[in-house]
Amino acid sequence: MTAAAPLSPPAHWTRKDLLGIEDLSCEELECIFATAEQFKTTLGRTQKKVPSLRGRTIVNLFLEPSTRTRVAFEIAASRLSADVISISGNSSSIVKGETLRDTAQNIQALNADMLVIRHSAAGSAQYLGRIVNIPVINAGDGAHEHPTQALLDVFTLREKFGKDLRKLKVTILGDILFSRVARSNIWCLQKLGVEVTLAGPSTLVPDMFTRLGVRVLHDLRAALAEADAVMLLRIQHERQTSTHFPSLGEYTSMFGLNRLRASWLKPGAIIMHPGPINRGVEIDSDLADDVERSVIREQVEMGVAVRMACLDELTRDPAGGNI
Amino acid sequence: MTAAAPLSPPAHWTRKDLLGIEDLSCEELECIFATAEQFKTTLGRTQKKVPSLRGRTIVNLFLEPSTRTRVAFEIAASRLSADVISISGNSSSIVKGETLRDTAQNIQALNADMLVIRHSAAGSAQYLGRIVNIPVINAGDGAHEHPTQALLDVFTLREKFGKDLRKLKVTILGDILFSRVARSNIWCLQKLGVEVTLAGPSTLVPDMFTRLGVRVLHDLRAALAEADAVMLLRIQHERQTSTHFPSLGEYTSMFGLNRLRASWLKPGAIIMHPGPINRGVEIDSDLADDVERSVIREQVEMGVAVRMACLDELTRDPAGGNI
Amino acid sequence: MTAAAPLSPPAHWTRKDLLGIEDLSCEELECIFATAEQFKTTLGRTQKKVPSLRGRTIVNLFLEPSTRTRVAFEIAASRLSADVISISGNSSSIVKGETLRDTAQNIQALNADMLVIRHSAAGSAQYLGRIVNIPVINAGDGAHEHPTQALLDVFTLREKFGKDLRKLKVTILGDILFSRVARSNIWCLQKLGVEVTLAGPSTLVPDMFTRLGVRVLHDLRAALAEADAVMLLRIQHERQTSTHFPSLGEYTSMFGLNRLRASWLKPGAIIMHPGPINRGVEIDSDLADDVERSVIREQVEMGVAVRMACLDELTRDPAGGNI
Repeated sequence: MTAAAPLSPPAHWTRKDLLGIEDLSCEELECIFATAEQFKTTLGRTQKKVPSLRGRTIVNLFLEPSTRTRVAFEIAASRLSADVISISGNSSSIVKGETLRDTAQNIQALNADMLVIRHSAAGSAQYLGRIVNIPVINAGDGAHEHPTQALLDVFTLREKFGKDLRKLKVTILGDILFSRVARSNIWCLQKLGVEVTLAGPSTLVPDMFTRLGVRVLHDLRAALAEADAVMLLRIQHERQTSTHFPSLGEYTSMFGLNRLRASWLKPGAIIMHPGPINRGVEIDSDLADDVERSVIREQVEMGVAVRMACLDELTRDPAGGNI
Repeated sequence: MTAAAPLSPPAHWTRKDLLGIEDLSCEELECIFATAEQFKTTLGRTQKKVPSLRGRTIVNLFLEPSTRTRVAFEIAASRLSADVISISGNSSSIVKGETLRDTAQNIQALNADMLVIRHSAAGSAQYLGRIVNIPVINAGDGAHEHPTQALLDVFTLREKFGKDLRKLKVTILGDILFSRVARSNIWCLQKLGVEVTLAGPSTLVPDMFTRLGVRVLHDLRAALAEADAVMLLRIQHERQTSTHFPSLGEYTSMFGLNRLRASWLKPGAIIMHPGPINRGVEIDSDLADDVERSVIREQVEMGVAVRMACLDELTRDPAGGNI
Repeated sequence: MTAAAPLSPPAHWTRKDLLGIEDLSCEELECIFATAEQFKTTLGRTQKKVPSLRGRTIVNLFLEPSTRTRVAFEIAASRLSADVISISGNSSSIVKGETLRDTAQNIQALNADMLVIRHSAAGSAQYLGRIVNIPVINAGDGAHEHPTQALLDVFTLREKFGKDLRKLKVTILGDILFSRVARSNIWCLQKLGVEVTLAGPSTLVPDMFTRLGVRVLHDLRAALAEADAVMLLRIQHERQTSTHFPSLGEYTSMFGLNRLRASWLKPGAIIMHPGPINRGVEIDSDLADDVERSVIREQVEMGVAVRMACLDELTRDPAGGNI
């Protein structure tokens, strides 16, 4: 786990796509964060729109259900004055047997300017990035990556703890095995010098994760004791094909975050969750709403600024305007 | 049933939300009507848009199926130059078990400027109004209230009969028991001094409704004889859990509005229906289309002006501009 | 099969609706093509929007699943600066038993400026055109017509072979019996003087089609030998209620287009497909992507320009502006 000191960010983003965190450099992360900071200042205004993407069309291709991420991308796009067309799995030609490749190529042939894709298959965003020549943003591909979630999580940490995260300790708690959010966050946090601990039952947090350079703990108290932030993950009923724990109640009694366990955290430590929350499973309901500890709502809010930054940077031309 | 004389409306709306008609004052009703009149003049223009809500984002959260109301709100919002994001039950995180409260709080955290909610549970709009700090409009909550429908119904009456409705007699006919439209209309009409009669089979129009200060009649001829307007209600197959009448055919033969029964109305009396119409059930098909009697289409048209007024008033700041 | 020489197009479109190709004159076809050519030049620009339909609301009523056509109409509308509201079968009041007629009349009463309709019933667009006074565009009605698809197909041919198509020979191959695309194309091509051949198994291409003035061939090699363009059609599993061929594999082995069969085409002959493609059924996958032969992607791209032309022409007033 080596991390470079924060550098001056590159003038602007140079990759075509945003497919995952694993391949990004610290400079690229800082580039998104710097732009997100600018957009953050527009969120509170009455007039929240900026004209950057006027006349552009962004297609949201969401082949898994989602409120938060789809709406966040729609709002981010409309704040940038882009036109947005959202396609969900139910209404698409995919029910007529069209391949994902053909759907994507058609979207490009329709002269869309960008494609945001959520898909149940790991690697689907990479695949699309190779076959279309417009920018592609991965909004979640199976259990692989969810880069904009990690970017907004880390942006929220920066807001709380400052830009230099190298002395920070973050514990990710829960269903790591099935979580694209965990994977993207592990890479993002490590690149910025954060010490990452994974916690949860051994079926969901197998020791093999230590190969990623993180600490794996199955003792919750130890995992919470040193953390500056604990990132909870949703128990994803719908993704689990076999039994990784006896029951939801069993999970909650062993690893659910409640008042007692939250008291093991350091003063000032914060609680994060990417949503949607299973209240009473991963976290007690009142703790999720505790504005002293929980930054869950800030995460949602920062998500708009971060996604505006991603949309804006990926459509920028080298001369400084948007392509 | 006491009604104040029409007063000069308040300069502008002061409540945060529009949750129901029951709590509104006559002045508040007049405030919406006065603004709706202004917007009505823009409907016929080629250029129908006004810039009032440019840069604002309105989220339509429709957790029950609807064409008319959702599309009317979308059109009203786009006529005011707002951005609209519609979320329906099927595609939302609610399938992942997120609570309504969390969905609403996320919508607020995304910096949406207003929430329009339709939900099958009575009280859901009130509940959301308390937990988010952006304006909430109730677009129908179970069998409780549907305030914008009542406002557009009464606005249509005003267009036909003038602003002072105190000498008017209106009969509401049909499935009162399950109808949020009836409830909102009873309150709205009574506040403005209209004499309200409810009619239909006793299973759907129980005598207890007299406690609301209305007349209940099970003799259709008597109920129609004095009415200036008859408001039909949809027989809501999908809401009825037990049998309130033997069959649809039986209902039609007893209470369906046909040419003969329409002849019992006074000259100049009008027929209203909130839609969607079950043609041949509540009303004969040709009678629904009879432009001499039926104002069903005017109701839909006035719905846009009334909803523009609601969206506009609820986002106005006290200084006169939109917040 | 008589075809007039290309004439100077009429100044502008004069019909209220675009319901099918069968009734159109050559001048009307040329009118759309001439406008589409103008819009084609805007597609490649960064700033792709033109202000023609600013302030207008177009309702897309899609009661069959579709990605391509719905998104193409949405993009065309937003490129013209119109507001678009898309209604799909699942979320509409049709689930509450509202008739198509009432849905359409409500859309008109909501002051929408145009209705684009896709419906499984042949004749549904004509029906709507009669009962609403706003322009109606047929985006596919059962197995009857799909005029904008034929217009974009023929526009693509014009781009490849020039404006005078009178010496051209086009073979339509596949499931003609169930295809609205075939029907619209047969009429469109014949009006412009193209010699049309239909090919496929006799169950899907019965000899009765010769009554339309086309040639029917069941020998694929003969059908391909003289063609300047071969239009493939989707095998529509979902529409077939009985067995018209033994199996998909059997169809492919007899009529699927592969490298060998493509070699029977003349040099310079092109391959077209309206999408969505069943790769490996109607056409080998690599052949569909062969940019020397296949213009499938150009068809999608031209579809935006052609639909912009249709939306623009149908909202134009005789004085030259948009109504």
